[in-house]
Order: sequence, then structure tokens, then C-alpha cells
Amino acid sequence: MLAGHYFGACLPTFASCADRYCLGGYGGGGKTMEEMLDLAKQVEGLDGLELVGNWHVNDQNVHQVAGLFKARGLKICMLVPDLWTQAKWGRGSIAAPDQATRRAGIAEIKKVMDWAAELGCPVIDVWPGQDGFDYCFQADYLEADKWMRDALADCAAHNPKVRVLVEYKLKEPRTHCFVNSAARVLLLTAGLKEVGGLLDVGHSLAAGENVAEAAALLAKYGKLDYLHFNDNYRSWDDDMMVGAVHLVEYLELAYWLRRVDYKGWLTLDIFPYREKKVEAARECRDWLAGFFKAVDRVGMETIAGVIARGDATEASAMVRKALNM
Amino acid sequence: MLAGHYFGACLPTFASCADRYCLGGYGGGGKTMEEMLDLAKQVEGLDGLELVGNWHVNDQNVHQVAGLFKARGLKICMLVPDLWTQAKWGRGSIAAPDQATRRAGIAEIKKVMDWAAELGCPVIDVWPGQDGFDYCFQADYLEADKWMRDALADCAAHNPKVRVLVEYKLKEPRTHCFVNSAARVLLLTAGLKEVGGLLDVGHSLAAGENVAEAAALLAKYGKLDYLHFNDNYRSWDDDMMVGAVHLVEYLELAYWLRRVDYKGWLTLDIFPYREKKVEAARECRDWLAGFFKAVDRVGMETIAGVIARGDATEASAMVRKALNM
Amino acid sequence: MLAGHYFGACLPTFASCADRYCLGGYGGGGKTMEEMLDLAKQVEGLDGLELVGNWHVNDQNVHQVAGLFKARGLKICMLVPDLWTQAKWGRGSIAAPDQATRRAGIAEIKKVMDWAAELGCPVIDVWPGQDGFDYCFQADYLEADKWMRDALADCAAHNPKVRVLVEYKLKEPRTHCFVNSAARVLLLTAGLKEVGGLLDVGHSLAAGENVAEAAALLAKYGKLDYLHFNDNYRSWDDDMMVGAVHLVEYLELAYWLRRVDYKGWLTLDIFPYREKKVEAARECRDWLAGFFKAVDRVGMETIAGVIARGDATEASAMVRKALNM
Amino acid sequence: MLAGHYFGACLPTFASCADRYCLGGYGGGGKTMEEMLDLAKQVEGLDGLELVGNWHVNDQNVHQVAGLFKARGLKICMLVPDLWTQAKWGRGSIAAPDQATRRAGIAEIKKVMDWAAELGCPVIDVWPGQDGFDYCFQADYLEADKWMRDALADCAAHNPKVRVLVEYKLKEPRTHCFVNSAARVLLLTAGLKEVGGLLDVGHSLAAGENVAEAAALLAKYGKLDYLHFNDNYRSWDDDMMVGAVHLVEYLELAYWLRRVDYKGWLTLDIFPYREKKVEAARECRDWLAGFFKAVDRVGMETIAGVIARGDATEASAMVRKALNM
Repeated sequence: MLAGHYFGACLPTFASCADRYCLGGYGGGGKTMEEMLDLAKQVEGLDGLELVGNWHVNDQNVHQVAGLFKARGLKICMLVPDLWTQAKWGRGSIAAPDQATRRAGIAEIKKVMDWAAELGCPVIDVWPGQDGFDYCFQADYLEADKWMRDALADCAAHNPKVRVLVEYKLKEPRTHCFVNSAARVLLLTAGLKEVGGLLDVGHSLAAGENVAEAAALLAKYGKLDYLHFNDNYRSWDDDMMVGAVHLVEYLELAYWLRRVDYKGWLTLDIFPYREKKVEAARECRDWLAGFFKAVDRVGMETIAGVIARGDATEASAMVRKALNM
Repeated sequence: MLAGHYFGACLPTFASCADRYCLGGYGGGGKTMEEMLDLAKQVEGLDGLELVGNWHVNDQNVHQVAGLFKARGLKICMLVPDLWTQAKWGRGSIAAPDQATRRAGIAEIKKVMDWAAELGCPVIDVWPGQDGFDYCFQADYLEADKWMRDALADCAAHNPKVRVLVEYKLKEPRTHCFVNSAARVLLLTAGLKEVGGLLDVGHSLAAGENVAEAAALLAKYGKLDYLHFNDNYRSWDDDMMVGAVHLVEYLELAYWLRRVDYKGWLTLDIFPYREKKVEAARECRDWLAGFFKAVDRVGMETIAGVIARGDATEASAMVRKALNM
Repeated sequence: MLAGHYFGACLPTFASCADRYCLGGYGGGGKTMEEMLDLAKQVEGLDGLELVGNWHVNDQNVHQVAGLFKARGLKICMLVPDLWTQAKWGRGSIAAPDQATRRAGIAEIKKVMDWAAELGCPVIDVWPGQDGFDYCFQADYLEADKWMRDALADCAAHNPKVRVLVEYKLKEPRTHCFVNSAARVLLLTAGLKEVGGLLDVGHSLAAGENVAEAAALLAKYGKLDYLHFNDNYRSWDDDMMVGAVHLVEYLELAYWLRRVDYKGWLTLDIFPYREKKVEAARECRDWLAGFFKAVDRVGMETIAGVIARGDATEASAMVRKALNM
Repeated sequence: MLAGHYFGACLPTFASCADRYCLGGYGGGGKTMEEMLDLAKQVEGLDGLELVGNWHVNDQNVHQVAGLFKARGLKICMLVPDLWTQAKWGRGSIAAPDQATRRAGIAEIKKVMDWAAELGCPVIDVWPGQDGFDYCFQADYLEADKWMRDALADCAAHNPKVRVLVEYKLKEPRTHCFVNSAARVLLLTAGLKEVGGLLDVGHSLAAGENVAEAAALLAKYGKLDYLHFNDNYRSWDDDMMVGAVHLVEYLELAYWLRRVDYKGWLTLDIFPYREKKVEAARECRDWLAGFFKAVDRVGMETIAGVIARGDATEASAMVRKALNM
């Protein structure tokens, strides 16, 4: 537990992270699921892990994986349908120009929903990362919008035990992803009450959003269902450790999560390419705990007053005090 | 006329553009309204001009200004309520933390709507540029959202002869503006049919959008009411001449404007700080004409086919041919 | 004094800051020099102020200004030749395409050097902000490079009592400035020992540099002569208060200033558009003091060890501890 | 041949490009060296290919590879020492904190220089992509600078038949690379006449440079030895096809290459993840040919005159004419 929330991590936190140059990975992670889970267990306070279809879980191993988790007292906090690790999704999944691919994307999502229901995981994360375009004149924006909405509506109705969340990102792996901001998620899923939202802090930062504002907006529409934590330098999804760059923004986010009464998981989605995996997760945990403690120390009412007055020098002094400087 | 549309320009195109260092302006523009209009008249094909409250038009001179336009055969294509040229709007207008300021903002908009109705101008441009924040912990995002929506609903009902358009921008003059993307405009004004949208190409580029996608999205919801043309290097609203940087994006935009059957004005919003004003406007006009001609030369069906196939090399070859290279 | 250094501010900190929309300024600053200085005096610990030619000081008032400073026990820590507040510099100063303008730029610099010598100010800040280009095909990069170097060499030899510093910036007021990075300053002035460098933290951040690295590099070549402090969101020179965004980067900078034994002024260059001027300067001061204190608390050797080992999780833990989180 | 130059491509143009999500690659490329070369031969006008150590060439296959090239009438235009495809370089190569790693980096470079000499390839490309840092307090900037310079000096003296080129990049695979701009290359290698520079257009764009300016600067110091062509959206090294985004910048670059009398190869460095490889290379070739033709059509003197006058509207009209619009 962390600041009153379940605390999770994406499984690749404990794998050997690769990039497009070093395809074999920088090392230091677990090779098998068991090894990764054993590393995860070393992070005190960690309650569960996210799994990605195809990379971690598939038709053959799903029950075996469940057993590995149970044996270690870990929850599966999220399943992510694989819509992006294979070449067949290269031009899109649920908004691909090719109809058969779109259908395969929907089938993949539904299959993972059923796994989730069986495993007691109440949410899945639809990240349509390949749904977008790289070049001008390469996408029919209106058709894609329609395809994506239809697919989400279709999936949402599939299994009432599992809520479909949409994760947005401005770019990567495409130079432009269709679902690129919190507002876009809300617009795309307007009227689809059973479809929720997933806010990845790094995606929000790289999309040019103020992340607390994005969280507040999603919450207003009842779609702040889940959070991914990491940090970056704003121009790319660096998936760095929490505490690397955006301290003030994280502090403000901690306040808004309390304010909108967020009840969900606090889950890490970092790629510690060159770092020791367990230490990296611990650092993120301690930074997160620190932000929440700082908010509690200052107090919700005091912060609300500062915000209401809108005076930047007063806000600055409050942040300085919150950080004990 | 330009490519079948009325062709307009914001009046500051013909003024002496200033920035925060050279507050007196870089020169070369008209000093009086007459001088600015006389420069505008030298741009062959120009049908009308946009005016900004306080800078160009006010309670005292509104009818005199109308006379100056009539005498020169020019239309007033847009009136922009002044919500940003005076210190009193520094912390916001219709979403200011101060209630009296919010009311003043609404009153200003309604006043300009009445001027517009009287002058036969069917649209006004609400650009809430000062409505936003500079620092974390300086804004209550949910209150601001509500204030802004209420204000727009209130204004929209004021005068049925004038449509209220909302212009979005990611930042400047605030480091963060609340209404920062096409999706945000659509979300904010969902259900308010009488409120439309204004797409400024430079704002869209600087917001990280693909501008043709933004146009298509606004059109889908019936809110692509008006366009501002200019160019920039993506990180700031440089208000450069059309043709400066984003040729492929402009070509794609021209296609989508034809495709969604856009009927409105094509209006320049450039700040030719160091350029000859008339020549700058002419250049923009000729580039715009070139983009539309290129689309017509290639043909709507051919382009639609390329888009449907989504093959980037085919798209590249088409662009190359469209540009006669 | 601040952390063992003289502490200064640019005079516009205490003026009514304007931008290109609100040309009259957002208010709250002093109107006359006396008023600005009286505001400055309210910032405890402030030792001196920077003045900009034309805006603050000119042929007529230079001695009067000196008197106003003396009367208040304030130093003039820097004079900035006006190469950017007037339309005549719009296309450049010492690297303008027009030879007469280049000569006028050099004359302006030399005149200000003489003022500085007379006033006991040992440095001037050459910020060639207008020397650059907005569009492709608008500048002869090699000629400009030569003109600029020749001008700097010429000025540097003018008055041995005053050191000429070059301040770099990526963009604004031009979309591209020629002298755009620390490396560019060092390359441009290689061999000109009497020409130094001025590092504006915000310019460095907006140029995509890591600011501590830029400082170290300038120091290595003996050209870290002076510093401007402010903060921004990386895409523009927002001139915000210290502590607004980049806490970790500032902490690292404080370490490197100690490490390279920086002896110069710590000077604020902020534009507190909408803020109370005195409070804004005080906040910056307290944040700066906090960063240096944190470095001292952790200790130079401890930090050096962390850096030498290059382990990001250890660095993260150290930052967390330094901020008392 | 292309516009009077040898025309090359990096071998991965014809491989199955992978990214960090789709590690198996998006397909469509050759699997073996033979297959890749056979694809390359389909690109009419292609004269040679670049090879990367470890990925393509190693101690065992170097002569066999030479034979494959000879059999197809292709040159090896560049060898790239592997300083970035293996986990052992994860924390740097020639500027790694670990001395043994630095020595291994130098040995790797020298080994590749010897291969190059043997294969008749006069240049190698040192791209120190892993030499940098991800987090603050993770690098000793001054030590790294010294290590890198010493290593380059050491390697440069190794084999007089082979010139060592340095390729710069702002980021990726590290969030910050040490050698991040053209100016940085020139500063780092000042006085090392036998070390040259490699300008990758995409790296330059993503570093916030104007690419023609970077080329001119490198040429001024005799270090514009080699060029990589590709395109991107400025915030990341997307490695897209030429002609994707920056048409005006490419046109200006073509002019400056003629102007500084560049004699080297024109080499593609693209990652056509989802594109047909041969068509992608052909498109780049045709765009490049188009830019050079446009420059020749307008004429060097005409362009020089436009630049000398520095009038943006005249420059705009010239670009428009050059593109036949």
C-alpha cells in the first residue's frame, strides 16, 4: 500500500529493458516470469503487477501465470491487450485501415476481458498505440474516429465484470496517435459510460498537458480510473523514475488525486533501462509517498485557499514549504 | 476571393507589429485605421478584415470604423472582443478567479455581439487567451471549466444573429491556456450548438496537433466555422507567413477543407514584424492559392484513394507530384 | 548577499511587464527609476541591479541614474547595450546584413563600455537577440558568423576595464538567433580571451541544454562570468520565478557552481507579468538560498561520489534527501 | 549517383525495422545480408551502403561481407563502430565512467578503422550515442569531455588512411547525449584536424538547429565530411523519409551544400518501419534530386542575392517559385 492506495507496477519494470538500438535489452532484469515476480517481491509495499498480452501472458500460460501471482501474494492489477507488440498491428488495431485487422483487434480485447474476469481483474487497458499515422495523407481521420468509437462501444458491452479503459498518448510508436489527450479520450468516449480512462503521467507531460489539470478533467467526467506513474523531459515518453524531473507537477497531482477522491491503484510504468530494477521501483515509491505526505503536511484546505487566490508567489512559497526548503 | 472562399486578414497584418522587447513596434505598418485599410486594399483579392476590440474598435468609433470599411468596399469578417489587451484581464476574463472580472468578460462579449449584429458581421471570436495559469497551484481547473462553459452558454443565447466562436491556443499569453486543443473546444462546448469553433493553424501546430486532423474533427461536430492562417516552428505562435515551414501540412489541410466542404473565410492572422506588410499578405495569398490548386490538380478522388490505402510511400509520391517536384 | 555571492536583479523585475498583447504592461511595477529602485530595496539581501540601454539608461541620464543607485546603497552589476529595443535593430545589430547598422551596433557597445568603466561596473552584457533570422534563405550564416566575431574582437579591445560578455539564446525575438548555445558562444569567441560568457538559465533550458552541463562547459573555458536566474517550461523563455519548474536542475546547477568555484553575481532575470514584484524577487531568492543550502547539507564530496558512480537510483535518493522528502 | 554525388544508404533501410515495442521488427526487410543487398540493388542510382558493427559486420564476416558488396557492384561508404547495440555500452563507450569500458570503446573504433582501411572505406562514423546521461547528478561533464576528446585524439592518430568522423545527436538512446550539436562537435574537436564531422539532418532538426546553418558552420571549419538524410517532427529522431516534413529546410540545405562545395556522399539514414523498403529509398532519392534540381533551376547567384538582401517576403516568393507553386 502507498498513501492509502494499492501500489502496483508494470511487469517490464523488472525485465531487461530494450530500445531500438539495443534490442537484446540493457540487462539486470528477470528473464522468466518467476524471476521478474521475485524481483517485484523485493519492493516492499508492492501489491500487484500489470501484464501485457503476448509479452507476458497468452492463451497457453494465463492460468499458470495466475498461479505464480497467487503463490507470491501479488494481484494482477491490470491486463493490457496486445495491440502493439507484433508486426500485424503495425498499421493499427481497432482503427486500422484494414477491416480484418480491426476485427482482430476487437477480438483480442474481448479475449483479454474474459481472462481478466476469470482472474478477478476488474479493468483492462486499451492502449491503441499503433492506431495513428506517421505521415500526412496517411489516415482518414473521420473514418478512424468512427472505427475506434464503434470498437470501444462493442468491447465495453462484452463483459460487464470488466471495465475497458482507454490510455492516451501523443506519439510513439506512431509519430501521431489518434487518441492523444485527456480531452480526446473524453470526446471519443462521450456517452459510453462503461468506458473509462487511464492517465499515464508521462504521456500527459509529453502531450503538453498540465497533468493535474488532465486528472481533474478526467475525474469530472467519471473517467479517472487508473494511473501510470513515470517521468520524462516532455518531448518523449522516456519512462524515467518518478522524481526525475517534475516535482512540482507531481506535488500538484497528489493534491488533485486527494481532492477528486481518487480510489484506484498507483501503478508504476517505468523503463529502467540501465538501472537496478528493484531500487528503481523503490525510489519511485518513496518519491510518491513523499508527495502525498507533503500534501497532507500542508493540508487540503490550505492548498485550496492558495489555489482559490491564484497568486503565484503564494503558490511558490507553499511549494517551497511543502518541500521543506 | 481565394480558391472559392472570401479572403480576409486580421488588421494587425497592416500595423507596426510589436513584441515584448520592441514595444514601439518594428515599423512599416499603418498608424491610423485609414492607413491600415489603405495598405490592405493593395492586397488584390482581399475581401475583408478582422478587428480587435480596444485595439481597433471601441464604443466611440464603431460606426466611424464601419464607414471606413464601406468606403473601401471591405467587409468586417470578424470582431474579436478584447479579453486580453488590458491589464484588467491579466488573470483571466470569463474564467478569472474574480467574479466581477468574469461578469465584465461576459459583458464585453455581449457588447461586441451587438456591434457585430449591427455591422452585419455574423460571427465573433472569443479567444480566452488570458484564461489559464502560469504556475502549478494557481488555478482551480474544475471551477474554471464550469465558469467558462457557463459564460459561453450565457453569451451564445444573447443575440441569435451572431454566432460565438471559441479560438483555442496551448499557451501565450499564459504559460498554459485552459482551452488548448480542438478536442478541448469540442468537449467544453458539447451540447452548445450555437457555439462554434475557430481553428488557428499556428495554434494547432504549436499545440502538437496535426492540423488537418483538427480541422476534420471540428467539422465532424459542426464546429469548423472559421480559420486563421499563419505558420510557425511548432514551439511558439510565431505568426509567420503561410509557406514558411509547413508545406505538406498545409496541402493536407487544403484537401480536408474541400472534403468537409468548408464554406467560411480564409483569413490571415500573421505578425509580419520585420516584413513589408502588403507583400507579406500577398505571399500568404499566393501560397494558399497554390495549395488549393495543387489539391485540385491531383484531384479529390485520387487523394482519397491514397489516404484509404494508407501507404506512406504512395502518399509521399503524391505530395511530390502535387508540388511539381 | 546570497549563498556567499552578490545578489542582483534586472531592473524590469520591478517594472510593469508587457507582452505583445498587453503592450501597456500588466501593472504593479514602478513607473520611474526611483519607484523601481524603491521596490528593489524592499528585497532584503539585494545588492545591485542590471540596467538596459535605452529602456533605463541613456546619454542624458547616466549620471543621474548613478546617483539614484548610490543614494540607495545599490550597485550597478551589469549594463546591457541596447541592441534590441528599437526598430532600427530589427534585422540585427552586430551581425545585421546592413554595414551601417553593424557599425552602429559596435558603437553602441563601446559607448556602454565607457559608461560602465565610469560607473565602476566591470562587465557588460552583449545579447545579440536580433541577430539571427526568422525564415530560411534569410541569412548568410558564414558572413554573419564573421561579422559577429569581428565585432566582438573589436569591442573587447576597446576598454580594458570592462569585460564584454556574450549572452546566448535559441530564439526570440527572432525565430532563430545565431548565438544559440553555450558551445556556440565558446566556438564563436575561441581565442578571444577578453570576451566572456553569460549563462541565462532559462535560455539554457529553452535551448535544450542541461544547464549544469552548460555551466561546467563555460567554466572549463574560463567563460562562466555571470548568471541570470529564472525558469520556464523549456519551449519558450517564460522568465518565470526560480522554483517554478526545474528544481532538480537547479540543485545540480548549485552544486556545479560550487564545484567550478564560481565567484560572480547571482542575478534574477524574471518577468513577473502578473505577480507582485517584490514578493516574486523574494521567492526567487529563497529558492536559490534553498538550493545552495541543500548542496551544503549533503556535502560536496558526497555529491561528487554519487556523480562518479553514475547510478541513477543513487542520484535519485540523494536528491530526495537533499529536498528533505 | 544523385545530383553529382555518390548516393548511399544505411543498411537498416533494407532490414525489418524494430522499435522498443515491436522488438521483432515490422517486417518487409531482408533477413540476411544477401537479401538486404538485393533489395538495395533495386534502388536505381544507389552506389553504396553503410554498415554497423555487430549488427552487420564483425570479426568473423568482414571479408565475406566485402565479397557480397563487390559481387553487386556496391561500395561500402561507411563503417560504424558498434558503440551502442550491446548492453556493455549502456553507460557509455569512450566517455563511460568505467575506464575499462572506455578502453574497449577505443579498441573497437581502432579495429573498425583497420577494417575500413582494408576495405577501402576512407571514413568511419563514431556516434557516441550511449555517451551521455539520463538523470541529473549522473555525469561528470568535465571528465566526460576530457575522456571523449582524448579518445578521439587517440583514435585519429591510429590509421592515417581512415578519417574519424563524429556524429552528434541531442538525445536517444540517452535522454541527453554529450555531443549534441554541430557547435559542440567543433568545440570538442578543435585542433584535431584529422577528426571530422557527420551531419545527420534529423539529428540536427531534433537538436533545434537550422540544418543549413549547421552545415555551413561545419564546412567553415573543414568538418562537413558526410551527411545522413532523413526527416522528423523535430521532437524525436523519427528517421522518416526525406520529403516528409521539412521541404523548405531541405531546399536551403541543398543550396548550402552547393555553396560550400560539398563533395561527399548523400546517404540515407531512415527507419522505414512500416514502409516498403525499396520504395521508401526511391522516394527519398527523388525528393533529394528534386531539391537539387530546384536549386539549379533558380540559380546560385539568384539565391545568393535573395539571402544577401535578407527580405523574408522575397525569400518566400523564391521558395514558392522553386517549388513551382
